[in-house]
Amino acid sequence: MTQGYFDNKKNEYVITDMFPRRPLIDYLWSDSVFCSLEHFGGGTVSARIDNEKRVFICGNNLVYIKENGEYYSANRNFKQEKFDRYEAHVGLGYHKVVSEYKGIKTEHTIIIPKDGFAQLNNIKVTNLTDKKRKTDLYSYIQLNLATSWHHSYSRAGFDEGSGGLLFTHNGYDLPTKYNTILALSDVPLAAYSVTKSDFTGIYGDFFAPDSLKKDRLSCNGATFDGELCSAMQFTLELKPNETRDINIAVVLDKTYDGALKAAKKYSLQKTYENELKYQKELHEKYLPVFVAETPDEYFDTMINVWLKRQLLLDRGSFAGKGFRDLMQDIAAYTTIDPERAKRYLLLMLKHQYEDGNPIRMIQPNFHYPYNDCGVWITGAVLAYLKETGDLAILNEVLTYMKGDSYENAIAKDAFMYEPYVAAEKSDTVLEHIDRAVNYLINCKGKHGLVLWRGGDWNDSLNNCGLKNVGESVWLSIATVKSCNEYIELLEYLGKDSSKIKAARDELTANILKYGVEDGRFIYGYNDEGDKIGSKESKQAKFYLNPQTWSILSGIVKGEKADELMKKVDKTLKCPFGYQQCYPSYSHSDDAIGRASYFVEGLVENGGVYNHGVAFKIASDCVRKNGDDAYNTLKMMYYSNPENPDNGVEPYMLSNMYIGPECPYKQMRGFAPMSGNTGTAPWIYMDMTEYILGVKADFNGLKVQPCFPKEWDKVRVKRIFRENEYDIEFVKSDENGIIFDGKAVKGNILPIGERNSKHKVTVYFNG
Amino acid sequence: MTQGYFDNKKNEYVITDMFPRRPLIDYLWSDSVFCSLEHFGGGTVSARIDNEKRVFICGNNLVYIKENGEYYSANRNFKQEKFDRYEAHVGLGYHKVVSEYKGIKTEHTIIIPKDGFAQLNNIKVTNLTDKKRKTDLYSYIQLNLATSWHHSYSRAGFDEGSGGLLFTHNGYDLPTKYNTILALSDVPLAAYSVTKSDFTGIYGDFFAPDSLKKDRLSCNGATFDGELCSAMQFTLELKPNETRDINIAVVLDKTYDGALKAAKKYSLQKTYENELKYQKELHEKYLPVFVAETPDEYFDTMINVWLKRQLLLDRGSFAGKGFRDLMQDIAAYTTIDPERAKRYLLLMLKHQYEDGNPIRMIQPNFHYPYNDCGVWITGAVLAYLKETGDLAILNEVLTYMKGDSYENAIAKDAFMYEPYVAAEKSDTVLEHIDRAVNYLINCKGKHGLVLWRGGDWNDSLNNCGLKNVGESVWLSIATVKSCNEYIELLEYLGKDSSKIKAARDELTANILKYGVEDGRFIYGYNDEGDKIGSKESKQAKFYLNPQTWSILSGIVKGEKADELMKKVDKTLKCPFGYQQCYPSYSHSDDAIGRASYFVEGLVENGGVYNHGVAFKIASDCVRKNGDDAYNTLKMMYYSNPENPDNGVEPYMLSNMYIGPECPYKQMRGFAPMSGNTGTAPWIYMDMTEYILGVKADFNGLKVQPCFPKEWDKVRVKRIFRENEYDIEFVKSDENGIIFDGKAVKGNILPIGERNSKHKVTVYFNG
Repeated sequence: MTQGYFDNKKNEYVITDMFPRRPLIDYLWSDSVFCSLEHFGGGTVSARIDNEKRVFICGNNLVYIKENGEYYSANRNFKQEKFDRYEAHVGLGYHKVVSEYKGIKTEHTIIIPKDGFAQLNNIKVTNLTDKKRKTDLYSYIQLNLATSWHHSYSRAGFDEGSGGLLFTHNGYDLPTKYNTILALSDVPLAAYSVTKSDFTGIYGDFFAPDSLKKDRLSCNGATFDGELCSAMQFTLELKPNETRDINIAVVLDKTYDGALKAAKKYSLQKTYENELKYQKELHEKYLPVFVAETPDEYFDTMINVWLKRQLLLDRGSFAGKGFRDLMQDIAAYTTIDPERAKRYLLLMLKHQYEDGNPIRMIQPNFHYPYNDCGVWITGAVLAYLKETGDLAILNEVLTYMKGDSYENAIAKDAFMYEPYVAAEKSDTVLEHIDRAVNYLINCKGKHGLVLWRGGDWNDSLNNCGLKNVGESVWLSIATVKSCNEYIELLEYLGKDSSKIKAARDELTANILKYGVEDGRFIYGYNDEGDKIGSKESKQAKFYLNPQTWSILSGIVKGEKADELMKKVDKTLKCPFGYQQCYPSYSHSDDAIGRASYFVEGLVENGGVYNHGVAFKIASDCVRKNGDDAYNTLKMMYYSNPENPDNGVEPYMLSNMYIGPECPYKQMRGFAPMSGNTGTAPWIYMDMTEYILGVKADFNGLKVQPCFPKEWDKVRVKRIFRENEYDIEFVKSDENGIIFDGKAVKGNILPIGERNSKHKVTVYFNG
Repeated sequence: MTQGYFDNKKNEYVITDMFPRRPLIDYLWSDSVFCSLEHFGGGTVSARIDNEKRVFICGNNLVYIKENGEYYSANRNFKQEKFDRYEAHVGLGYHKVVSEYKGIKTEHTIIIPKDGFAQLNNIKVTNLTDKKRKTDLYSYIQLNLATSWHHSYSRAGFDEGSGGLLFTHNGYDLPTKYNTILALSDVPLAAYSVTKSDFTGIYGDFFAPDSLKKDRLSCNGATFDGELCSAMQFTLELKPNETRDINIAVVLDKTYDGALKAAKKYSLQKTYENELKYQKELHEKYLPVFVAETPDEYFDTMINVWLKRQLLLDRGSFAGKGFRDLMQDIAAYTTIDPERAKRYLLLMLKHQYEDGNPIRMIQPNFHYPYNDCGVWITGAVLAYLKETGDLAILNEVLTYMKGDSYENAIAKDAFMYEPYVAAEKSDTVLEHIDRAVNYLINCKGKHGLVLWRGGDWNDSLNNCGLKNVGESVWLSIATVKSCNEYIELLEYLGKDSSKIKAARDELTANILKYGVEDGRFIYGYNDEGDKIGSKESKQAKFYLNPQTWSILSGIVKGEKADELMKKVDKTLKCPFGYQQCYPSYSHSDDAIGRASYFVEGLVENGGVYNHGVAFKIASDCVRKNGDDAYNTLKMMYYSNPENPDNGVEPYMLSNMYIGPECPYKQMRGFAPMSGNTGTAPWIYMDMTEYILGVKADFNGLKVQPCFPKEWDKVRVKRIFRENEYDIEFVKSDENGIIFDGKAVKGNILPIGERNSKHKVTVYFNG
């Protein structure tokens, strides 16, 4: 287990074990820059330019301190020396590494400013002793400039005009014009170096760079070198207990003038402070929307701070926007940032083909004919409408994408980026939803189930239905759930839902007829007519999602649901969660696809795919079993005692723990990936809407808790439709709600006037 | 200057300074594998599979020795400890690193076997002391397996079936099926590791790998890791003065069975010894073809051994085959390997478009409309015919590539690989040559000079003629040279050459009318009608190649030629050779192209581009000025005292020394690249055919030396048409040749019966 602690006053996670099983990842971002860091501060910084990702910093970001010929890296501590203090502070909108060693305190803070293509580095160095000292401080930041293989286009060296280090890759007919990097500090350079090999020595390394063995960095410019860096040496005279700030901005631009202007601004101490302040205000704006106090401190911290932040990551931001992914994110973050939810809803709904089926991913467009994207629309739209009451969105008119989703995908090279081609037809948002639902209920195979085509939620069952024959039971169940949501919307709008209801009931009947085996669900039928996720299957005989979704969709209820979940427990449960399927595929099968090629226990092949576990938790709450929900959730915690040293960042959820069938023992239970996952929105909804049971509804705030038995006192503060609700949950023999001193019938808390505050007591029979 | 020496008995270069300015590169190759190594032994190994390059080893190849808890890297010596002996032996067909330290001798030899996709590592360890010792030896080889981004496809671990380490990346719909790597040793493993992070530690490095601090490597298998390695630990008990061999084969295959079979064979000591023997025999076959003894030992060594080897590199072998490049290589290595010359001649001539102009590069096909490729055909064909007498090749029938070279290129994405599409028409080789020459003499612009189109030899003047208006003076001159060669061929065949002669004379007249300025040549006119390489040009006012080629083509002769070269000396000469142009472009210009974007002094932009210098040396010999030729050649030597520590491998020629105008002082004169260059064939021809003046001719061996004045005694042994010529050159007052005791008229040595040997004395008036 990673050593560190949550500093809830500062909204920080403080990593104290700086050498955990794997580097912990942190993210910083603005609308134009995305930065992924290891906890030491090094990583990748990309600018978003015309939907392309332009990486301009990539690799180490180091601070070295040298005195009297002895040196160490203050933020990376390569030699793992015994520092007096050594911490990484994961903050909201900043990342800070602090160390104290030999009487010098160093704080290296990295932020991404609100606008522009830049990374700001503030290095604060403090003389902790009462002696005057002369200290050399070095900043090393690895750059990425070579946007073509013609290294002769690159120039790197000192820039007289600014006093900084200038890097250009000015070439003939390049893919991007953003080829100027300027690194500028607000403290004059004593010396510099511009290439990795010059800094470390061509035979040296970062543990003991050759250039630190000399008095000064070389001050050589360079060309014809792929590994450029901004290496700056500052010679500081520090009085007793004096603190000095050094600010280094690394900016990317098309032109020298643009870079100069930006770097001058961003290298100011004042700018750094303003940007920090902006980050603080930004996060203070949305954090109060939902605040929990339960007996489980980690549960609270995740809801109150960290999951909110993870939601807004937008799945790694520039990594391509999955339709399905965004819809689930929207469903969760609509409470936090409804404007953003609206913007993305409208953007994504434009990316339905004329047949109603959306594209799998945009930016870049990915045309593989996945067939499930439509089922995620209704949940996202309902969440948005209930949170905001903004029914007007339903009348916004949007185009479709030209073509038929299946034929289009089959015809195209699936990874090709192609510009958006609008169909002639455009429709209101409501009609877009209608078309998505109707696409699904009409896209059926010979068992009357929904066609599988290129895949569904399970991206890796990607060759079960490509021939247009295979049918997915899970996708059929998910379609039933989407129909339910659409019916709820139509009924709220006072519109006729009978056609959808009839289609849903017919689909449900087919699911029960062809999808059930021994009281549980199979995953589907592939193009060859073989059952997938069945006792007849050669491998992966039992899948998690069809079971949990049968409950989420209302197809299975009550005792039958409990029985079903007992089967799930028996087959799929392991010490760190629930496997996506069992037994894992160990032989590849082209009639199944990628999943069968993955190593046993990896990702969708028998891994504990946390997204699936999150569905399971929701289904436990639908079954009104708070204990099952909570106990499952706790298996996912970084602190799960049954899965120690799992590698996960305590302040994020990972999408996977490697499953128990992995052939490599030491990898079982390990989370190799960081927080770019659909697990985050679902766990956020699990915690807030399913377990705490506080959920926006059309006409008020619905309260329907499903606590674990051990909880007897819970408090939730929620801002909803500009009302503040302070809700105390009190265990009692009777259920009942007191709203502003009065008993409320049902479980909907009414909406008062703007900015009104409500005291609510919810008595629950635990 | 790199420290080391040539061991001529063993045909080795021995590097003794193991930490030169930059790593020295060595190459090993077969028809199916290409291996590029740093002198320590690490590097890249690629298999050639269906014209694709599949890298399967990439990075460090290390040997560590550990005794009593202390360890060091025997071949890489990271900490630069004071070894008793430490050398890299660059051999013909093998690379060996030898070290002695603390009483242990380690010899690590790498070879690429004749067949198959494999690298063999032989590690010989000797106890130099008279004490018994227990030694742990580790081999670490970095692999490259991930042929898709789905790391979950990868498996790595111990293979019970072979006792080796097995790595597979078995995935759905992958670009290659060659995804099985097996590393097998002939000594059983004491322990192993399969990922870099496991070996070094995730926070460690190769200087002090975490796993060496433990008794045993982890023996963990792995998946989901991009950085796989074969790390093997062997525990050896060594008697006093005992030597032990460990053989490790790393093989790539489609299947486990295939890999197993190959690895079993290639990990045998016997196989290693046989392969070494094969390499020795292979090189012994062609080395005697031309053997020189001159007063300049380095000159001899380069001809006798190292340039021959560099020629056969085929320009990095799998890096794409340039038409122009191959033609020049063929012209040189036809003496060494006429069969290979024939094979490539026929392959390349198929890659002329129907209009006669060849494609710029094949494997993959590169369609940018370079216009010079045709001028290189006649020289290559003449060289082949004169060497072999194989006139029959002229009647071989070959197809053309479909289409018009200019329109085809303009229409295509220039880098796209497209399969060969044959035109309906096919022709004999002689007609192919005719069509190439006629293409050039008919492809003229408004000054009656040859159109520039996408470029000529100077790849980086790639936008002077794209609009089909610009004309290249150099290309016109080169066309005259090609016409001369074609005329020579036609006349030898007794065919009419009058049409070609007339065209050549007309072109020559236009060159002299529009290409001359102040007694020297400009480079051309671009699409805008601006002169390039002229005093009117804003930059790069003087180019080297048009001057040297005016002499090579016979357009300028005698005193005029000497005067011209004085101008060249005045403007372009620098301490490490001749700049390609002066002054270097310092401002980019889209009406010129890439050259104007390169940093000053780099590559074709004012760099000392050695290929151009090689043309200059040939032209000096045409002017009969052996001193100029030789002095120019010596400037290119790694040992040039005016350009110390230039970085170049003593056993290879580099394509460039960075020019004196480079803004970065420390880079001037530096050779950043290794031996993948057209410099090699031309310098080989300069040395053998121009300076030593021994050159194949249709009816015998031509002798026409152009020695520097200081040479008074030279001996050349030459095998030609299965005759051995032992030629002694003796300085004398008179010129004259004694052939097998008889005076010969003229300078052609006759061809005797098969396997006959001839003693020749050439008296030259030095």
